Amino acid sequence: MGFERPLLGEPYLLTPGPLTTSLATKQAMLRDWGSWDADFRALTAELRRRLLAMIGDVDGAFECVPMQGSGTFCVEAMLGTLVPRQGKVLVLANGAYGLRAAQTLRALGRAHTVIDKGDYLPPRGEEVGAALDADPAITHVLAIHCETSSGILNPVEEIAQATYARGRKLLIDSMSAFGAVPTDLRTLRYEAIVSSANKCIEGVPGFGFVLVRRSELEAAKGNSHSLSLDLHDQWTVMEKTGQWRFTPPTHVVAAFIEALHQHAAEGGVAGRGARYANNRDVLVAGMRAAGFETLLDERWLSPIIVTFFCPADPNFSFPAFYELMKEKGFLIYPGKLTAVESFRVGCIGHLDADVMRAVVAAATRSLAEMKVASAAPAPHVLGERAKLVA
Amino acid sequence: MGFERPLLGEPYLLTPGPLTTSLATKQAMLRDWGSWDADFRALTAELRRRLLAMIGDVDGAFECVPMQGSGTFCVEAMLGTLVPRQGKVLVLANGAYGLRAAQTLRALGRAHTVIDKGDYLPPRGEEVGAALDADPAITHVLAIHCETSSGILNPVEEIAQATYARGRKLLIDSMSAFGAVPTDLRTLRYEAIVSSANKCIEGVPGFGFVLVRRSELEAAKGNSHSLSLDLHDQWTVMEKTGQWRFTPPTHVVAAFIEALHQHAAEGGVAGRGARYANNRDVLVAGMRAAGFETLLDERWLSPIIVTFFCPADPNFSFPAFYELMKEKGFLIYPGKLTAVESFRVGCIGHLDADVMRAVVAAATRSLAEMKVASAAPAPHVLGERAKLVA
Repeated sequence: MGFERPLLGEPYLLTPGPLTTSLATKQAMLRDWGSWDADFRALTAELRRRLLAMIGDVDGAFECVPMQGSGTFCVEAMLGTLVPRQGKVLVLANGAYGLRAAQTLRALGRAHTVIDKGDYLPPRGEEVGAALDADPAITHVLAIHCETSSGILNPVEEIAQATYARGRKLLIDSMSAFGAVPTDLRTLRYEAIVSSANKCIEGVPGFGFVLVRRSELEAAKGNSHSLSLDLHDQWTVMEKTGQWRFTPPTHVVAAFIEALHQHAAEGGVAGRGARYANNRDVLVAGMRAAGFETLLDERWLSPIIVTFFCPADPNFSFPAFYELMKEKGFLIYPGKLTAVESFRVGCIGHLDADVMRAVVAAATRSLAEMKVASAAPAPHVLGERAKLVA
Repeated sequence: MGFERPLLGEPYLLTPGPLTTSLATKQAMLRDWGSWDADFRALTAELRRRLLAMIGDVDGAFECVPMQGSGTFCVEAMLGTLVPRQGKVLVLANGAYGLRAAQTLRALGRAHTVIDKGDYLPPRGEEVGAALDADPAITHVLAIHCETSSGILNPVEEIAQATYARGRKLLIDSMSAFGAVPTDLRTLRYEAIVSSANKCIEGVPGFGFVLVRRSELEAAKGNSHSLSLDLHDQWTVMEKTGQWRFTPPTHVVAAFIEALHQHAAEGGVAGRGARYANNRDVLVAGMRAAGFETLLDERWLSPIIVTFFCPADPNFSFPAFYELMKEKGFLIYPGKLTAVESFRVGCIGHLDADVMRAVVAAATRSLAEMKVASAAPAPHVLGERAKLVA
């Protein structure tokens, strides 16, 4: 697999999706497809089959339902379709995506309660268990797999254990982790998991997908608050006709098929995950050597995106740093912490360790250009990290 | 403007979107964009500005709100956001898209009533006026501009007149007409009009847009049944940050910008409409010379898509005809009439009169290969058309 450089003048996207994709993936969009035609229906069938294989659905108990729109559209489709109108969801939040799921349920008028761990502390199995014991009305738990607000990889295995030990159902938002972090049904139990085209499979944005237990889908007829986002209807029409109910993003789907082939050629989830983990290790080691500090302790660092504290030096400003990094060919990502200044660097996409070394070199040079003497954060922000030591 | 042929082995799409796009439009997708970055925000701003100019929004009274997903997602966003929860919609249906709008309102639990004209008869101003007079609870009228089920161009001007004469508000689904049929605010009144990227602007599918009077948007806060499809929220976030609320289909947006440039270079709505009208005239004349009959009388034929009756000859079958046309490089479209057998041929996309002549030649050869002696429909189906003579 060649890691060709982006075209002239095009920066690397060190963002958690949209991300840098391979040229071959983008070239798959140089053709128009009739969405009604058998050739395109074959692409849809291949997409569904390959995604189901990725979660080890050996019993054939699951279905793959792709859905137009961004990842948030797919999360809304999952919640609106799979949670009955009389259901109640326990949302586990430690960042923007958990809070957005709660906001979605509010918009839909579905009962829910939130465990909000703040900016980055992980929701643990014991507290999930306690919350479920305290409220028998809760039917579903919604967990965020990798919360890209901080870059934390949440402990979904212990959350699943706590959930099913109490006879409740788990829904996982694995948007930014799926395809690089294991989500195999033989080791992790859930009723549905959702992700999108432009994350670890390295496609381009335009649709997402929900992998869902067939019995849950079958029971979900009439639940949806929306026509467009009705996962049950999308599934029944697709089963019957092989087509998407409404016009699919045909070019984006074709790019995704090419991206799926590359994912398989790299060794699937294990191979993809290993490259990203190496990207992260090279990035974190290099940035630490340059004086930067990570928000999270080793144990919680995901291979998806890493949050670094901003340097305390008064010459540092994030907007200036962003522009200096962009000049050097790298788009980084602003932080999302409420308490302290931070920025984020993604490890996912068509990038290898050479790129991560170049990122570190560019960060070091950018600091020098800003006349920032030290990359160290203010001493008090390190106290934040200390809270994580369990 | 060159009409390069599709790449080897790729058929022309004679379908009403997705359609055949230019190579330059597809090549605009060979780059990855950071959705947060200023370069991409500039694309979004250009898209909104150009679409507003297309409707002659000289007073600056309108806003352009793009929305992820297919056209149906955008219609749902328009209805769910702009129709208050206590509102009531008169849906003018003469085919699948009008009925789908009613289905959407049903899913949203919004009050509505339908004038259903069947397969293709146009809803006329007088009957709209009578329906509004009879039901003062109706707040909005929803009209389909070109109903691609039959290919009819509905009389939106007289519908607008009847609507505003009674102090109600008009919403137009101009999905397949926008960009080729005039929708200028100086000659047509409406509160909102919706279309999508992959129709007469000749972009690729992945998002749509609603052009809406600002005062309507401002009054729409909190109406939406959905987080993802909340047009008001999409607008306020876009105004504040220049970004889409949730991940946009970046490549599809970049292709759309290229398509907008080509649209302007061709002379905007007038130039694009003239080419499509010529495509239709060449197609209809050729097909009639070959013995085919159109469903609609001249007066109602849109420049978007044309419905032809299937030949009565027992050797004719649509699936076989479809495959023979595909072999020759043309994807046609099945009919959607309930009473009689028909098929449809689109006139839109990166196609010129030469292509339409080749379509006619391919249809003639396909009939010969099927041993169909005459393209004439059964005499009784022509009675259908007679109903249209007003």
